[in-house]
Amino acid sequence: MTAPSTPATVLDPAGDLIALTRAICDLESVSGGETALADAIEAALTPCPHLEVLRDGDALVARTHLGRPARVVVAGHLDTVPVAANLPTRLEGEGDDAVLWGRGTVDMKGGVAVQVALAAALQAPTRDVTWVFYDHEEVEAEHNGLGRVVRNHPEWLTADFAVLGEPTAAGVEGGCNGTMRAEVRVPGVTAHSARSWTGTNAIHGTAEVLRRLAGYRAAELDVDGLVYREGMNAVGIRGGVAGNVIPDECVVTVNYRFAPARSVADAEAHVRELFTGYDVTITDAAPGARPGLDHPAAADFAAAVLAFTGGAPAPKLGWTDVARFAELGIPAVNFGPGDPLLAHKDDERCAVGQIRLCHDALRAWLTT
Amino acid sequence: MTAPSTPATVLDPAGDLIALTRAICDLESVSGGETALADAIEAALTPCPHLEVLRDGDALVARTHLGRPARVVVAGHLDTVPVAANLPTRLEGEGDDAVLWGRGTVDMKGGVAVQVALAAALQAPTRDVTWVFYDHEEVEAEHNGLGRVVRNHPEWLTADFAVLGEPTAAGVEGGCNGTMRAEVRVPGVTAHSARSWTGTNAIHGTAEVLRRLAGYRAAELDVDGLVYREGMNAVGIRGGVAGNVIPDECVVTVNYRFAPARSVADAEAHVRELFTGYDVTITDAAPGARPGLDHPAAADFAAAVLAFTGGAPAPKLGWTDVARFAELGIPAVNFGPGDPLLAHKDDERCAVGQIRLCHDALRAWLTT
Repeated sequence: MTAPSTPATVLDPAGDLIALTRAICDLESVSGGETALADAIEAALTPCPHLEVLRDGDALVARTHLGRPARVVVAGHLDTVPVAANLPTRLEGEGDDAVLWGRGTVDMKGGVAVQVALAAALQAPTRDVTWVFYDHEEVEAEHNGLGRVVRNHPEWLTADFAVLGEPTAAGVEGGCNGTMRAEVRVPGVTAHSARSWTGTNAIHGTAEVLRRLAGYRAAELDVDGLVYREGMNAVGIRGGVAGNVIPDECVVTVNYRFAPARSVADAEAHVRELFTGYDVTITDAAPGARPGLDHPAAADFAAAVLAFTGGAPAPKLGWTDVARFAELGIPAVNFGPGDPLLAHKDDERCAVGQIRLCHDALRAWLTT
Repeated sequence: MTAPSTPATVLDPAGDLIALTRAICDLESVSGGETALADAIEAALTPCPHLEVLRDGDALVARTHLGRPARVVVAGHLDTVPVAANLPTRLEGEGDDAVLWGRGTVDMKGGVAVQVALAAALQAPTRDVTWVFYDHEEVEAEHNGLGRVVRNHPEWLTADFAVLGEPTAAGVEGGCNGTMRAEVRVPGVTAHSARSWTGTNAIHGTAEVLRRLAGYRAAELDVDGLVYREGMNAVGIRGGVAGNVIPDECVVTVNYRFAPARSVADAEAHVRELFTGYDVTITDAAPGARPGLDHPAAADFAAAVLAFTGGAPAPKLGWTDVARFAELGIPAVNFGPGDPLLAHKDDERCAVGQIRLCHDALRAWLTT
């Protein structure tokens, strides 16, 4: 008999890292359904005498109190995008050439497994560590579990530096681009399409908006030594009333990904300038994060990890929760296993060698 | 007590024409709900000894059999677009300056009232007349009651010439433009919008399609002496997958209104040529109708009516059921009260002088 309070899945942080990763992936946790996984991790870490375990909803914080001169956060989200018939995981190949297939293997349960294993194993890291696991990263920002912890318990996240385990193919990716969405609205005047000259076709009027977008050359901006490539793209267009009506409105939804050298206000001004002459509504925006690799704690991290993995720091182009740490004044970088281009794909998969490499590099950094 | 089979509204074809128009308008008959109006007209015309009354669903045919050398059809539809709180009708002003407001006053119950009044009154017209009232004109063509009568009883519509009472502001409008809808599809390659350069933005690619539309100069074609102005318009556009995805498809729906000098095949070739390089799908098409004003019966009609109303024949630009008569080889024109630009509008309204003028002009034609 299993007692009702025992989580269905028991995680063994001290066991094989890939087995741990598979167990975490196979415990489905699409956004909103993270409770069982949070329970399993809480159950795995609570017995560790060197950790204080805290919980807010399905977010967990497990931290050491060793009196070290520096404290670092290592954070990762527990949720995934919906499963696409790609669970349970399957392992193909042998040894470090093996590839683990399935939802979450890239985004970002490899990183979560590394955190769970190291949180349990590192009883005396050279820096105090706050291990953070949180819910609702893959959905609207308002639901984001890390944002909720920031609001409810900002003191839980106090740190000198943060590492976010988002997939970077085991490279160090600093900061992130900001993102902004805007609606560009082109007006027209309705008419029956049999007498189209009595109206003004809003869709035809949108030719100029699309011309500006198609001709836009995205900037590449150097921020603290990393080059951030921007993007200005239509991600949606809609217009039309009926099959026999000249449309009186066409709306283009534009997504601007902007380098962390720009503030949200700068980004808005840039979008408005590009679409001068049109009605522009900013519908949402999130600032980027400077890479912060000039900060000593970050430089120290990068040096330690890159000595292990090789390569050089690169810019993170997608928006990630490092921006939340940036807003808290905490330099943060992304570092995790998995090719980010495979995130959210039906054929999501990760070389197990990358999971081991990230584990070993973080362990090296936290033990030297 | 009223017997159950008596229609709720009793029409008096011999009474005041405007009162008859109002009674017909106030008997709501949105497409699919024409039965009560068809019943009322059937009840009004069946007692006329000079008429044979036939019925198919909610379509009615009332015809004379006088052995005249020519037979003409005078046809109108009974249905309207949905009521927009614009019934019952209201009359503003006095005498022939009065204006009748309400759904159907333009499209096309003024014409229907003229038909009902003349069908009952003209016991010995100079041409045999087939008065046609039909259902489901304002909805998908497959439901059109005139089309159903053509399929079920083509012999009911045998004629040398046809007049359709669609609103022309009491002018003679010959033939009609054809109409075709096409989808122009622009492909792309999806990517995350944070790395837009790894994809191809289908919406940006649509700039060229819209440029061609915006720069298109519609032809004006002389057909049998009338000049048909064409139109090539986007009536819809759609594209976009999600707010962070470079879209892999953008589809522009184009409506081509083409002069009756062109066949559907010609029109398709023209659309395909305009959008050379793009995937074009024709989604529906209806041929236009030549004005046929060079036909003796049509010329005779135009001369008789215009002697009464003044003016000159004009082209009909919207698609109307005259095209069905054209397909049957019957020359047909549009002639009816009401400004076509007010059809389907919330402020639909008709000068009662136009209703009387159309009545008097048709009577003059059919009695001389």
